[in-house]
Amino acid sequence: MLEYRNLKIAILGGGTVGANVVDLLTTHRRELEARVGAGLEVIGVLVRDPAAERTPSIPANLLTTDAEALITAADIVVELIGGIEPARSHVLAALGSGADVITANKALLATHGPELFDLAAQVGAQLYYEAAVAAAIPIVRPLRESLAGDRVRRILGIVNGSTNYILDQMDTEGWDAERAQVVARELGYLEADPTLDLEGYDAAQKVAILASLAFHTHVPLDAVHREGITTVTAAQVAAAKAAGYVVKLLAIAERLPAADGTEGVVARVHPALVPRNHPLAAVHGGNNAVFVEAEFAGSLMFYGAGAGGVPTASAVLGDIVSAARRHLVGGPGVAESTGADLPLLPFDRVVTRYQIAIDVTDRPGVLATIAQVFADHGVSIETALQTVRPGADGAPPTATLVIVTHRAEESALAATVEALGGSDAVATVTSVIRVEGL
Amino acid sequence: MLEYRNLKIAILGGGTVGANVVDLLTTHRRELEARVGAGLEVIGVLVRDPAAERTPSIPANLLTTDAEALITAADIVVELIGGIEPARSHVLAALGSGADVITANKALLATHGPELFDLAAQVGAQLYYEAAVAAAIPIVRPLRESLAGDRVRRILGIVNGSTNYILDQMDTEGWDAERAQVVARELGYLEADPTLDLEGYDAAQKVAILASLAFHTHVPLDAVHREGITTVTAAQVAAAKAAGYVVKLLAIAERLPAADGTEGVVARVHPALVPRNHPLAAVHGGNNAVFVEAEFAGSLMFYGAGAGGVPTASAVLGDIVSAARRHLVGGPGVAESTGADLPLLPFDRVVTRYQIAIDVTDRPGVLATIAQVFADHGVSIETALQTVRPGADGAPPTATLVIVTHRAEESALAATVEALGGSDAVATVTSVIRVEGL
Repeated sequence: MLEYRNLKIAILGGGTVGANVVDLLTTHRRELEARVGAGLEVIGVLVRDPAAERTPSIPANLLTTDAEALITAADIVVELIGGIEPARSHVLAALGSGADVITANKALLATHGPELFDLAAQVGAQLYYEAAVAAAIPIVRPLRESLAGDRVRRILGIVNGSTNYILDQMDTEGWDAERAQVVARELGYLEADPTLDLEGYDAAQKVAILASLAFHTHVPLDAVHREGITTVTAAQVAAAKAAGYVVKLLAIAERLPAADGTEGVVARVHPALVPRNHPLAAVHGGNNAVFVEAEFAGSLMFYGAGAGGVPTASAVLGDIVSAARRHLVGGPGVAESTGADLPLLPFDRVVTRYQIAIDVTDRPGVLATIAQVFADHGVSIETALQTVRPGADGAPPTATLVIVTHRAEESALAATVEALGGSDAVATVTSVIRVEGL
Repeated sequence: MLEYRNLKIAILGGGTVGANVVDLLTTHRRELEARVGAGLEVIGVLVRDPAAERTPSIPANLLTTDAEALITAADIVVELIGGIEPARSHVLAALGSGADVITANKALLATHGPELFDLAAQVGAQLYYEAAVAAAIPIVRPLRESLAGDRVRRILGIVNGSTNYILDQMDTEGWDAERAQVVARELGYLEADPTLDLEGYDAAQKVAILASLAFHTHVPLDAVHREGITTVTAAQVAAAKAAGYVVKLLAIAERLPAADGTEGVVARVHPALVPRNHPLAAVHGGNNAVFVEAEFAGSLMFYGAGAGGVPTASAVLGDIVSAARRHLVGGPGVAESTGADLPLLPFDRVVTRYQIAIDVTDRPGVLATIAQVFADHGVSIETALQTVRPGADGAPPTATLVIVTHRAEESALAATVEALGGSDAVATVTSVIRVEGL
């Protein structure tokens, strides 16, 4: 039998997630200890300002500003500070001192992952991060372990709750983007600086982490193609709805053929049209979901709350229990699996369908002219729908042409759009949006 | 650094899953070895008849009928025989010889789980069984690890693909139960003896496993209340559809208040009405899904293919990689978590709403009489809808009354239905079906 041990847990960061982790760990201590078979003692919480108000409150005797003393004394260090520094230095110090580490820090993992994983492997420590992607939804562990014998072909995630809330309100309530953003901020979905969410940076960090796991290949953040939702208009959302689609900000990572016949990885974040009968279309409000296509398992989906102090704390607690169980039995940790080391392919290898909205003048031959531009670039048209509006005050009527293409490469589409801009038949290309093959 | 090792894998059973595991392990051997950091050698496949046809085929030099020699030589034993014996004896022998064990055998786990888990803990071996519930959908590992720091309140699973296919066809195509069963058998969804599926035995085994994991409490198979789908009629499905519901065979395990103010567990399998806008209502065909309600994580759903040789093999391969990684680092295994040991509550503690269809004679005062029967038993009516059909050939008109109750205990509802049967106002109680609170 194992000796009964008391494991010392240090929490770095007393924000919403940190405060909830301390509260739940304290309130449910006996229950969690029974599951681990050891004591779980929070020995301190590192904060910048011990006097700050916290919800839920943290007992004053746990608060400390002395990172070094706290980290050195701990068996398990839980990093919930966020951002790069001082989080990075603290995690490195914790691993260096022999502690197992749990982090919810997607920015740190997406930018300094290899440094952390290498040190963890070197010292034989565990590094867990289930809360870094999609909060309480188990996705890191299923990719790392459950699908470890499979070959993932594509991941499509709705991994940013703020932008999903905004797009969902535009779709279901017909709001314009501005109103949806204002309400999202009132409801706490958006930060004071919403750029991280709206421009897709947050989703890009998460897909870098997911892609690295799924393809056993380090996918750095700067290899992720990123577009946000600030260009998505109410008219686009309405047009998508009329055509049986919904606009979602998708975080996508997939295996694609490389030029030499082998396979590589592309990771990308951008708005895309999803068919309304697909499970991802049913992800409403601030929820998250990750859809995984694997060669043997087929299609899987993981769905739930993608943010919030308590759901994120649930994922952290699960990692604490795993780390504690593992700490007790000893032995080196499991290293990150990057053995596949697939090449990272440029974004223009991606092949999808596109929906393109074009304002044209309504005169004979326009459709033929435009169709010829597509044909010249090898982009084949699947459907074309023209809507004519009478001109105001005797002006000539204007028409909007909405074209959905067959599958085409990014580069061919970009050349087509550029040529359309130079065509006499075209007033403006008002919208180009990808239609993800699902 | 670890020494490079060659791990010897024994496969017990050469059926569809066994043949696919051998095929995928062989075809993708280098890729999987890179993920593990060790050799993965299939040293033999235990079969009853080496001459039998198999798809995919298994190399003849791997086939053996000598269980003892094969098990003794293995580091990892994969049990894919199914049923109780000889599977149970082989698993016990493998654990006893120091091998880690992977099994997809839900019947064995649901009936002899504690014996196997106890031996594994005693000898310090791993026992993995992701494939035993919902094939390739990761649900065992998320419950055992990701949610290990949370408190699960309720699990609702669609865990039997055959019955889901049948109910889905009745709902979407309007087929009667007989036609749906015939086609299900033609498509290979139903075995020659369909009782295990249709009567809910298969789902009951799975919910016993899920409940044990989720509540850290051994839930034996005979504690699971079980009703199948053979009583579900086309008329019930149509009535449910008209009312905004879909009939699903749900495997449910939940925490409920016990008489002494503490909490206990009830596990049950029965048809139930699910609101059409709930994610579980969108699980079509032979797919599976498990919906988990946890105190901190909130609502989560896991969705995918719940059966099939290749998806099941995917889950087995994931377990093989986990077991191999663990085997390399050594140390005792993680014991099953049954520390909560919650009391098992009787089924009549369950409180749900009910939809009750009653054939009544259409005369004044009937509704009042029937409403009084409900009131006498403390069961409160939420909605009542009466449909009148003219009698044939001058017979008096007949009427169907569909009542949905507020939440009521099983025992009160049972007494109400019995009293209705004895009432002059009632011709027949044609259907009683639970409406699960979602």
